[in-house]
Amino acid sequence: MPVGTQGSVKAVSSEDMEEMGIKIILANTYHLYLRPGHRIVEKLGGLHRFMNWDRPILTDSGGFQVYSLSKLRTISEEGVTFQSHLDGSPHFIGPKEAMVIQQALGADIIMSFDECAPYPADYEYVRNSVRLTSLWGRRCIDYKERNHQALFGIVQGGMYPDLRELSAAELTQMNFAGYAIGGLSVGEDRGIRQRVIKETVEFLPTDKPVYLMGVGKPEDIIEAVALGVDMFDCVLPTRNARNGTLFTRNGQLSIKNACHTDDDGPVDENCHCYVCTHYSRAYLRHLFMAKELLAYRLNTIHNLYYYDRLMEDIRRAIREGRWDEHRQSFYASQKQGISDSLSG
Amino acid sequence: MPVGTQGSVKAVSSEDMEEMGIKIILANTYHLYLRPGHRIVEKLGGLHRFMNWDRPILTDSGGFQVYSLSKLRTISEEGVTFQSHLDGSPHFIGPKEAMVIQQALGADIIMSFDECAPYPADYEYVRNSVRLTSLWGRRCIDYKERNHQALFGIVQGGMYPDLRELSAAELTQMNFAGYAIGGLSVGEDRGIRQRVIKETVEFLPTDKPVYLMGVGKPEDIIEAVALGVDMFDCVLPTRNARNGTLFTRNGQLSIKNACHTDDDGPVDENCHCYVCTHYSRAYLRHLFMAKELLAYRLNTIHNLYYYDRLMEDIRRAIREGRWDEHRQSFYASQKQGISDSLSG
Repeated sequence: MPVGTQGSVKAVSSEDMEEMGIKIILANTYHLYLRPGHRIVEKLGGLHRFMNWDRPILTDSGGFQVYSLSKLRTISEEGVTFQSHLDGSPHFIGPKEAMVIQQALGADIIMSFDECAPYPADYEYVRNSVRLTSLWGRRCIDYKERNHQALFGIVQGGMYPDLRELSAAELTQMNFAGYAIGGLSVGEDRGIRQRVIKETVEFLPTDKPVYLMGVGKPEDIIEAVALGVDMFDCVLPTRNARNGTLFTRNGQLSIKNACHTDDDGPVDENCHCYVCTHYSRAYLRHLFMAKELLAYRLNTIHNLYYYDRLMEDIRRAIREGRWDEHRQSFYASQKQGISDSLSG
Repeated sequence: MPVGTQGSVKAVSSEDMEEMGIKIILANTYHLYLRPGHRIVEKLGGLHRFMNWDRPILTDSGGFQVYSLSKLRTISEEGVTFQSHLDGSPHFIGPKEAMVIQQALGADIIMSFDECAPYPADYEYVRNSVRLTSLWGRRCIDYKERNHQALFGIVQGGMYPDLRELSAAELTQMNFAGYAIGGLSVGEDRGIRQRVIKETVEFLPTDKPVYLMGVGKPEDIIEAVALGVDMFDCVLPTRNARNGTLFTRNGQLSIKNACHTDDDGPVDENCHCYVCTHYSRAYLRHLFMAKELLAYRLNTIHNLYYYDRLMEDIRRAIREGRWDEHRQSFYASQKQGISDSLSG
């Protein structure tokens, strides 16, 4: 899922994403609650109509942003009091508020309100975070009114295997429509993350979607899929695009590099995106160096297309029973890219 | 002509402009000479291919930018020595260089190199500016090699009627493909500009295009057309878009205004652009307030579409023999907008 934090996937339009074949996007409850406000979005017909996007939308619960963006947060059994990162104004979001806001926004998939522990955090803190997340998960289910919205639970538990198991066990009893793995990509090592994903997926039902929040790099996605994850969101393709870093089947490249100055070729010869079929590396480099706004849009279109095809290729390989082979060929082409650039 | 200073009309793609119906764009010789360099653009197949735009392009001569952007310029009979506004490096452009650069860029219409006098400037300065512009105009004709490029002369003469007449007389003897009125929009009053346009057009042939450089507001365009001008370029639609100022048939509006916060209507009910048919004022305001990059693109699409229709309507009115009526109805709808906003 491309990330449309403020009701816009940065630098591209809904039409751009339709043309790329994007099937679902994510929007942030915390940001839209603060600006323009969920009641305004509701009055204007909901988020789909507001941003002219008629395919599925997932809104997160706001829990992670309250933890990572806002200042002076205070946690109680009822929810979290925090200061807006925009103007310092005081706000409160608990499980009920998270449901009310997400119902007003009108996404297809909504997330239960969770308490995302920092990293590192001691066992007792994380134990309490799991307790609150289960308590709030139950309240979210009770508060949820609109049945067309699919409500996902979020498994917490930090890096502690028994707490992950506990969180997964408590949430699966509540019978959510899907389950997310939260509390990762908060600064932990890649090896630890892989272990936690493995130890969490084990305790989740196989007949419901598993969503790994905030991950990740192409290789992180490949490895998480190998462990049983189905869904992802990440700002990497859009943020990297705005920094001039482009994804290709042979790894990443920086469009700023002088070697692209007069390179008439596309970013990726094997890519069929609008950018690769219409513009040269030389033009993209020129736009980026000249700080032209078009640079950000074209780079974003390419990167989102790359990620969409990454997932499409994964789904096809699984359907066709050649997952292991696909995973190996993914790494082989990345290695080829590194070898090419060393010899080039 | 929308202005694509650095080989990109700011915030929109060539495809966006094709869809809007834009027929010709302008690019700046001075900027493209400095970055990425005309030889690189030439190597990559010329400006059309570089920016993926196969409709006409006009490049200016660089004369105005050397005057307005660069530092420490020194003028001689041969041309102008100046410092780059990017890195302070020294450069020289004279009539020959202007032709060489514009031939490498490969535009359909190219401009002869001129000396644009500041405003105000005394009679002797402007007299010399006219002399240099004629001298350089002759050299440009002599240097021009590629016959498929249409070369326009630029009439100078400041605000002095006899110097405008002199400049026009000298240039028309050289038989350019078209004639531009330069040296306006440099800080003079609107009344003075109107007088100079009138006194210049009088001395230009009626069977060749007359191009007023760097103008302007919708009402300035209407009045210049009334005096016989055919072509315009201006950054106003694109720059205003990025400042949140949108053009409508009833005048301008600022999308920042709080009154648009929950306004589900389009920017202009009578506009058929992509933005007005797909997005609300509320969404455009939200994007602008949240500094989303999509704001700049959508606002630019609307404003360029407005200007394109402004010119299309002018051409149709002239063809159908109802110019005076059209001009009156233009002002009536602007007045109606002012009256509506006063009573609203």
